[in-house]
Amino acid sequence: MDYSLLWLDWKTNALLPEYTGRIVGLPATRQGKAALRELMNGLKAMGGEPEQCGNRETGPAIRLTEYLGNDEKVTLRRRGEGMELIGSGRALLYGVFHLLRHLAMGETYPEWESSPAYPIRMLDHWDNADGSIERGYAGRSFFFREGKPVCSARTREYARLLASVGLNGCCLNNVNVSGEALELITGKYDGVLREIGETLGEYGVSLWLSVSFAAPLDQGGLPTADPLDPAVRRWWGDTCARLFAAVPGLAGFLVKADSEGRPGPHIYGRTQAEGANMLAEAVRPYGGRILWRCFVYSCTQDWRDQRTDRARAQYDTFAPLDGQFADNVLLQIKNGPVDFQIREPVSPLALRLEKTKSIMEFQLAQEYTGQQRHLCWLAPMMKETLDLRGPAGAVKDRLSAICAVSNTGDDPNWTGHDLAAANLYAFGRLCWDPELEAEGLARDWTRLTFGPDPAVTETVTDMLLCSREVYEQYTAPLGLGWLCVPGTHYGPSPEGYEYDRWGTYHRATCREIGVERGPLGTGFTDQYGPELGGMYANAAACPEELLLFFHRLPYTYRMKDGRTLLQRIYDDHFAGCARAEAMAKAWDGLEGRIPPDVFARVRERFREQLRSAREWRDVVNSWLYRLTLIPDEQGRELYI
Amino acid sequence: MDYSLLWLDWKTNALLPEYTGRIVGLPATRQGKAALRELMNGLKAMGGEPEQCGNRETGPAIRLTEYLGNDEKVTLRRRGEGMELIGSGRALLYGVFHLLRHLAMGETYPEWESSPAYPIRMLDHWDNADGSIERGYAGRSFFFREGKPVCSARTREYARLLASVGLNGCCLNNVNVSGEALELITGKYDGVLREIGETLGEYGVSLWLSVSFAAPLDQGGLPTADPLDPAVRRWWGDTCARLFAAVPGLAGFLVKADSEGRPGPHIYGRTQAEGANMLAEAVRPYGGRILWRCFVYSCTQDWRDQRTDRARAQYDTFAPLDGQFADNVLLQIKNGPVDFQIREPVSPLALRLEKTKSIMEFQLAQEYTGQQRHLCWLAPMMKETLDLRGPAGAVKDRLSAICAVSNTGDDPNWTGHDLAAANLYAFGRLCWDPELEAEGLARDWTRLTFGPDPAVTETVTDMLLCSREVYEQYTAPLGLGWLCVPGTHYGPSPEGYEYDRWGTYHRATCREIGVERGPLGTGFTDQYGPELGGMYANAAACPEELLLFFHRLPYTYRMKDGRTLLQRIYDDHFAGCARAEAMAKAWDGLEGRIPPDVFARVRERFREQLRSAREWRDVVNSWLYRLTLIPDEQGRELYI
Repeated sequence: MDYSLLWLDWKTNALLPEYTGRIVGLPATRQGKAALRELMNGLKAMGGEPEQCGNRETGPAIRLTEYLGNDEKVTLRRRGEGMELIGSGRALLYGVFHLLRHLAMGETYPEWESSPAYPIRMLDHWDNADGSIERGYAGRSFFFREGKPVCSARTREYARLLASVGLNGCCLNNVNVSGEALELITGKYDGVLREIGETLGEYGVSLWLSVSFAAPLDQGGLPTADPLDPAVRRWWGDTCARLFAAVPGLAGFLVKADSEGRPGPHIYGRTQAEGANMLAEAVRPYGGRILWRCFVYSCTQDWRDQRTDRARAQYDTFAPLDGQFADNVLLQIKNGPVDFQIREPVSPLALRLEKTKSIMEFQLAQEYTGQQRHLCWLAPMMKETLDLRGPAGAVKDRLSAICAVSNTGDDPNWTGHDLAAANLYAFGRLCWDPELEAEGLARDWTRLTFGPDPAVTETVTDMLLCSREVYEQYTAPLGLGWLCVPGTHYGPSPEGYEYDRWGTYHRATCREIGVERGPLGTGFTDQYGPELGGMYANAAACPEELLLFFHRLPYTYRMKDGRTLLQRIYDDHFAGCARAEAMAKAWDGLEGRIPPDVFARVRERFREQLRSAREWRDVVNSWLYRLTLIPDEQGRELYI
Repeated sequence: MDYSLLWLDWKTNALLPEYTGRIVGLPATRQGKAALRELMNGLKAMGGEPEQCGNRETGPAIRLTEYLGNDEKVTLRRRGEGMELIGSGRALLYGVFHLLRHLAMGETYPEWESSPAYPIRMLDHWDNADGSIERGYAGRSFFFREGKPVCSARTREYARLLASVGLNGCCLNNVNVSGEALELITGKYDGVLREIGETLGEYGVSLWLSVSFAAPLDQGGLPTADPLDPAVRRWWGDTCARLFAAVPGLAGFLVKADSEGRPGPHIYGRTQAEGANMLAEAVRPYGGRILWRCFVYSCTQDWRDQRTDRARAQYDTFAPLDGQFADNVLLQIKNGPVDFQIREPVSPLALRLEKTKSIMEFQLAQEYTGQQRHLCWLAPMMKETLDLRGPAGAVKDRLSAICAVSNTGDDPNWTGHDLAAANLYAFGRLCWDPELEAEGLARDWTRLTFGPDPAVTETVTDMLLCSREVYEQYTAPLGLGWLCVPGTHYGPSPEGYEYDRWGTYHRATCREIGVERGPLGTGFTDQYGPELGGMYANAAACPEELLLFFHRLPYTYRMKDGRTLLQRIYDDHFAGCARAEAMAKAWDGLEGRIPPDVFARVRERFREQLRSAREWRDVVNSWLYRLTLIPDEQGRELYI
């Protein structure tokens, strides 16, 4: 096997309770049987010797009680000296993994009664048919080899990983659909898609496909892809009839339309709702759903234009359409209004939709957050996003689903940086239960991955918990964002996006920096409604970590603690870099406590992180120093 | 034929003089026969009906008198009512093209006695074996197709073009030798190389090859490429023995060593002289020469480091080795000390070498000068470089040879921009005779290319003559350079290279800009000796167009005309852009006077130039405005 088991390696030195020696119950479904198998294998991996006792119950045991249906409610309760697990086949899987996790961590009777917070909890793969992964930092695709989709042993292992943290869906291919991926819906690959669908399905994971809105033109040979054209609707209808019959596990389509050059309904003068609903109608007979991305903005903006504000674009496009979408459409909204920066406010669209379902999109692939070379654990960001309260309630209570761009690839450790697997773990757990605390997630992942050594647990948990703030400190100050190298998005280039067409500007002069998004500026804060918007619009009330997202301010602006804005930025960059150095040293201190190959790989990552953090610190600070010629108050070195 | 004839189309409406009806003389050599054929074909193309009269002379005629040998001295003189052309075979070629050019332009008796200023006058192709061209802006390679070298009808047409302007060499492949190009010296392609060499040779054009210094390792299987290792020397000796026998037209090797990651003698602790001399010894038995590039500098500089000055690097590396190079080595020196920017001082190394031959390298491929989308005629830059006088005489008198990176590709018009062919033309003519004036070259090329229409001649000549200054005005002010987008080198990105590893910094703050290269700075000016260096070191004496190449100055520095440095930059950018607009309009005025396909192509180029010029103007001016908040004195718009 050329890949690791991640947190399913069941590292433990706990004594297993007696009841784990006997397993009672014979699940009938594929998922239920998988649950039984996982339970047996898991206990064996922990040193147990479980006996499968059919339905005979003669003492302390783990009883699996399967009921028919497809709901996901899990009951794990004490039964005499043993435990009973009750649920549908897929719920049994979630329950088994829950039980195994807790046994591995030495907890004896982990009672649990739980339903997932969202019915759709999925990963989006930006895997291309040629095997590359757009914004992929962990090797090449394990879904596509030699230009074609493949089903391999790794597909099954991947499905296990997802089920083990409660995820139940994955979209196979990049939202930028091109090349051979355009053929995924044409019948050419039905056989292998069915095989993938069945492999994922055994673990309760549904298959989704990204489709191109222009498919009727490009694959169908029609003269148009106009969503109101009867021939187009017929083509999609016929395509779905064949595809859903051929691929039983298929759940629906993910669509990036009218975005960054992708085709979409705007080309035909139709609304986003007309486009999405046409596809929704085509998948409806099969219980299918359409995930319709809201990432629609002008990517040909003139940098001279100060009135257009990219942050406004998604709300301006989609909010007026609220109520017009079919009930099997979910609007897919990135967590922030721009694009996966290390610090953004929550997308106001997610706070606003009343009559339309929405699915929030996070990015585990660390495109702007260190590219899986820097440690940046995103659970705190996910928590703060989900917890935010808008006028109509908290984000987490308004969503119908959650997804994330996957951070996986065919690297032996799945995620490039061994510690980046903690993002995958935490994401799955939070999709099931957004009330979980970051610290517990960090601690559990660490113990499951590295075993019970308390030095490792404390050190790694602490690293994970502070890593996002550290990354934020040495990169983009106070929500400013977009100081990265254009194109690659790795490393600093403070003016790199400044005179370009992407709508991502700071407009820094020798006196001021930032874009004013309050009522006297682009008016973006209005999208949050009077209460939240009023707070963001008022620099004195605005959370300081978002100050430069919402405001244009002089470098001499006084922060709440009395420091100038500029000094705060200098300080953050020095502090973030020092903390990155401390993390790297802390890791070095774990030598001998971590498997040598993992230790060495992570040490290399920390070295690169430290090199890059210094570069970020010096470039951003020196850039601002050159702009202002205001020295650091503590006399630390800045460079001309 | 899928390509044009450029200036060899012999557009004319001149009446041919009577003597052109009879050709006397029967050259014996291949080149002499080619000369005769070119003469016959050229006269026919001009509407003449030349009769080939063997050796019988019975009236006004053109007599071709060939003498044996390989020298290049041409005599074209009046003989009775006709003309006589005297020279070696290849000299006859140069004479015939000279005669044809003048006849085409209506000159009746163009007497000429001339020898070329330099024995080596060549083009360097940055063509890769995969058919791509590094920094190529005119399509793909016509020397490499489907991963292999090819000899085609276009090879011959290309040789004609070179001979027609007096060029006598070309290097087939990119100095960054990679992929299949590494096999060019191993015997694998001897057959096609011989064919190419013979095809070029018919027009007096020698073949050169770029080689990798690591070839003994990578192709020879030796454990080292150390130039002092006997096995390495033997390997090169054996390789050359085979290669020069197999490819008769081969003149030698071009080598990029210890430069931008290329292998070289420094890896083995040897000097550049030891590396070059080893190869020189290997090619010497066959009359071969080594062209050894001096483009050696640190491309991993820390941007924080203010002491290292890339401009110093070539002189610092090579000047101490003067006298140590074999006599069949020529040091290849770029015209400026950095890298083909629109304005640089002359490389001090070219002014310094006493005991070593040198070949100057220009770049017709407009990497930093508009990429053949902008019109930028480089003859004025070549002239100013060649004419510069250093302590030991003018540059042009100190060189042994001249070469240029070719601007050709397989586009139908050879050079992407139809008017960029003027760079190829002027380069060849200046290599033969650096005393030629730019205006005459521009005028002749225009008349030969577009025919005698005076409106076309005046308009295009004027455009060519001002185009370099116009490009300079709207791009990089006063020798500053490197404000372009990293990597692509097209379009503005004023801070793009600032925090990078290339040694190309302006270190602009809100008060000052530029790098001080005088004695109080990096000391670079010392490399020019006391007189020239003293002038450059003194801002008040320094030519203003080089002010920011040599000096760090406040934006409020007063120029000779009383304007501030900043206002001068603003003004230049507005003026350059306005002039680009005027050029585009002037071209539009030629509609109907230029072949429609050429007219349309060039119009599109001018539109792109104008779009790009506006971008340059606004980005550079706004960048400086943001840095300083000093407005334009004329109130023109700048952007925050």
